[in-house]
Amino acid sequence: MNNNPIEHLIKRLAKLPGMGSRSARRVALHLLSDKDMNMDPLQSALQSARDKVEKCSTCHCLDVVNPCSICTHPEKDTTKICLLQSVGDVWAMERTGFYKGHYHVLGGVLSALDGVTPDKLSIGTLLSRLDGVDEIIMALGATVDGQATAYYVAEQIRKTHGDITISRLAYGVPIGGEVEYLDDSTLATAMKSRGAF
Amino acid sequence: MNNNPIEHLIKRLAKLPGMGSRSARRVALHLLSDKDMNMDPLQSALQSARDKVEKCSTCHCLDVVNPCSICTHPEKDTTKICLLQSVGDVWAMERTGFYKGHYHVLGGVLSALDGVTPDKLSIGTLLSRLDGVDEIIMALGATVDGQATAYYVAEQIRKTHGDITISRLAYGVPIGGEVEYLDDSTLATAMKSRGAF
Repeated sequence: MNNNPIEHLIKRLAKLPGMGSRSARRVALHLLSDKDMNMDPLQSALQSARDKVEKCSTCHCLDVVNPCSICTHPEKDTTKICLLQSVGDVWAMERTGFYKGHYHVLGGVLSALDGVTPDKLSIGTLLSRLDGVDEIIMALGATVDGQATAYYVAEQIRKTHGDITISRLAYGVPIGGEVEYLDDSTLATAMKSRGAF
Repeated sequence: MNNNPIEHLIKRLAKLPGMGSRSARRVALHLLSDKDMNMDPLQSALQSARDKVEKCSTCHCLDVVNPCSICTHPEKDTTKICLLQSVGDVWAMERTGFYKGHYHVLGGVLSALDGVTPDKLSIGTLLSRLDGVDEIIMALGATVDGQATAYYVAEQIRKTHGDITISRLAYGVPIGGEVEYLDDSTLATAMKSRGAF
């Protein structure tokens, strides 16, 4: 059991997000127990994703074409850009089917603790694609870092494109949320931002 | 987001044990976000495990050599064979460092529901390696199927090697277990099998 390739595979699997050493062991066993049925299809899926998927040089989303299919989609509203932290956020937003504009993936949020400085985020490419844009929608996380980043980016945008509307996602009670179990700040924000019934 | 290789990778990842579509998406993003750091090492770990790891033809454990390093280990007691369901069970037993004998991986348990018949388990290879063995330790799961399988295998062993001692793991309170939260059958078994203090 201490042989290299198995242990090495388990260690690599355990580095995946949401995976511990126990589940990594389980997955490794699953893969090795039937190489043809389990291992090979995963390997070819990884290889094909590795070869074909790339980052869109415009919005930094992942796709098999560059610029990505959202950036080149003829029906997307080119006057709106939604600013998000990660590609997963873009997928989540696309799943809602509600938003019809473009995206820009920032690649994270500013964080002094994690050493994320403005030059590590794709702020430059955002600023270079602002011509013809009417609205930037800040959809970064409602965390301290997320909000500080949104504030910083908004400042940069205003320096050169003062006429662009900068909006943000609404804060409030999540749909399906029980008031009793909401945290204080969400509840206070929801009360402050209350609307007509 | 509906492009083939990404969606395909997510679907493959979601088939891994303990992985749902949400965590599969997260893992896929993690892998694709930094191919050099995340994707490539996993791919090479998979490839090396795929190429080098094989099933031991004696005990059906997984190893880089065949027969495996446990079967060929000079200090293992060749007169004892511990019968287990899966390779993961062997690893668990080896981690305890307590047992010094050999193993035999059955590859599952008999199950009418799942269509697991005796010929699908490695019972034949077990019966063929019984010469010189003094004791078979049944370490199959303490489930109905596990026990039925142990019973069946014990019968087969007795047909040809009636002199072999057949034992089983002790049943009782797990170490660290609270009596209050134990299920009835475990508690009843622990009481019935009580020993001297």
